[in-house]
Amino acid sequence: MNLELDCISCFVRNALAAARFATPDTDVHERILREALQIAAASDSTQSAPAMSQYIHRRLRELTGIADVYQDAKQRFNALALELLPELQTKVSQAEDPFASAVRLAIAGNVIDLGLNGSLKEVDIRRSLQEVLTEPFFGDMHLFRTTLSTAGRILYLADNTGEIVFDRLLIEQLPAGHVTVAVRGGPVLNDATLTDARAVGLDQIAEVIDNGSDAPGTILDDCSRAFQDCFNRADVIVAKGQGNFESLRNASRNIFFLLKIKCSVVATQTGLAIGTQALVYHHAAPIG
Amino acid sequence: MNLELDCISCFVRNALAAARFATPDTDVHERILREALQIAAASDSTQSAPAMSQYIHRRLRELTGIADVYQDAKQRFNALALELLPELQTKVSQAEDPFASAVRLAIAGNVIDLGLNGSLKEVDIRRSLQEVLTEPFFGDMHLFRTTLSTAGRILYLADNTGEIVFDRLLIEQLPAGHVTVAVRGGPVLNDATLTDARAVGLDQIAEVIDNGSDAPGTILDDCSRAFQDCFNRADVIVAKGQGNFESLRNASRNIFFLLKIKCSVVATQTGLAIGTQALVYHHAAPIG
Repeated sequence: MNLELDCISCFVRNALAAARFATPDTDVHERILREALQIAAASDSTQSAPAMSQYIHRRLRELTGIADVYQDAKQRFNALALELLPELQTKVSQAEDPFASAVRLAIAGNVIDLGLNGSLKEVDIRRSLQEVLTEPFFGDMHLFRTTLSTAGRILYLADNTGEIVFDRLLIEQLPAGHVTVAVRGGPVLNDATLTDARAVGLDQIAEVIDNGSDAPGTILDDCSRAFQDCFNRADVIVAKGQGNFESLRNASRNIFFLLKIKCSVVATQTGLAIGTQALVYHHAAPIG
Repeated sequence: MNLELDCISCFVRNALAAARFATPDTDVHERILREALQIAAASDSTQSAPAMSQYIHRRLRELTGIADVYQDAKQRFNALALELLPELQTKVSQAEDPFASAVRLAIAGNVIDLGLNGSLKEVDIRRSLQEVLTEPFFGDMHLFRTTLSTAGRILYLADNTGEIVFDRLLIEQLPAGHVTVAVRGGPVLNDATLTDARAVGLDQIAEVIDNGSDAPGTILDDCSRAFQDCFNRADVIVAKGQGNFESLRNASRNIFFLLKIKCSVVATQTGLAIGTQALVYHHAAPIG
């Protein structure tokens, strides 16, 4: 998306939160904060929030010398989600509409986002699961279901660790052999990489690739040629989370975005209330 | 205070909110936001949050050509508070401890702060009044009472419009003829100026002066010589609100700060929870 003015102060706050997450060194905190302010001041409206985050997280890795700042948190969230997986699989299989149930659980998993909520606790995830069927839902489940059922090539753009375990529930509902799951090309925030995807067994139920980029979203120009080819060849693209939404909402492909609406900017862009489980269909060309 | 890293993103967000409050012109919004980012990036730890706000509000007045951006809101909050005054005066006079009751109401009035809550509504003020006696309170009411009762010269540093009507309740409890009320020297946010103080009749119950500065706090070096003299001669200083706390908490005078704890930075500095009605005594010299 084009950068919204509201994203700027959020970006600045999150840069400081990330620095504090990474290290107790207050010099690094201040340095990251100042760099965030500088790149925000110099930003133009063609930039996306994920692009700015990508830059600041690279700097954070450079300054701390830590290749994967969120490694512990990622392993913790994956382990917790895996613990919940059997009961969730039962819940889906016993649901009146297993597909719809899996969609809603996959969106609920999007709560596991340390970019917007650095202090996320396990209790938040359990609460999100309890609320999964009572939360407001927006989207055309019928269109989503029929489009997926007839698609030859489905590209599923994953988002965060932990969340990818919930994605398994939905991917298990899709036609076997038709799904490619793409994860980030390198560590950024608690976003899932190949290592994380394999750790939760995603590679056992679908082809898993990485997109070649360390942005917390899908910035196509920054992705590998192999990923871009896959993106362009897919019949349907499913994209999880705000980062993918922010970076792909003007893409020239048809995309189903699955996300929880977490901030006022995306709420305004989608016309949906914060907290909504959203299945937003982006049709590249005007309909009709 | 020395500038806290946490104040920076809050400052950036508030600069944008102030620009939106002042004008629908999106060019001004973006320009103010960029200038806020630039001065934040160049700031050092000796600056205070009120000093940065002072600068950005000056720029906002320059860019919009509006001398008092918050004039309408200020008149509205003063009018609302004046409407409530008779019933509040009755409440105080009928209270078991009129002084303590007036102190808590004066602190409750500190909720009228468009700097931290640009979308403040009348309902918020009425709610604050309802909660005034049940909210957590921290402070040495006895020390405050006895110090004031024996003071020759009391300097009362006011904060916001609307709130100054609540201050009347407390000032009416103080020894007549001993109180000087100081307001801001020029419009900034919804802070009270001489015009606002006279509009609610503060000049009828105390001497009212302005501090010669348009900062949303009390930056002594920026205040007039006359105000500084008054500040230095006072036997007791009472300072309302976070802006005065942030700019005077290291001052070399004994000060009673009366404020609602509204943000995590001041919560950490005072050791009090957000929402607390606080009577914080600042003793310039070490006790003992």
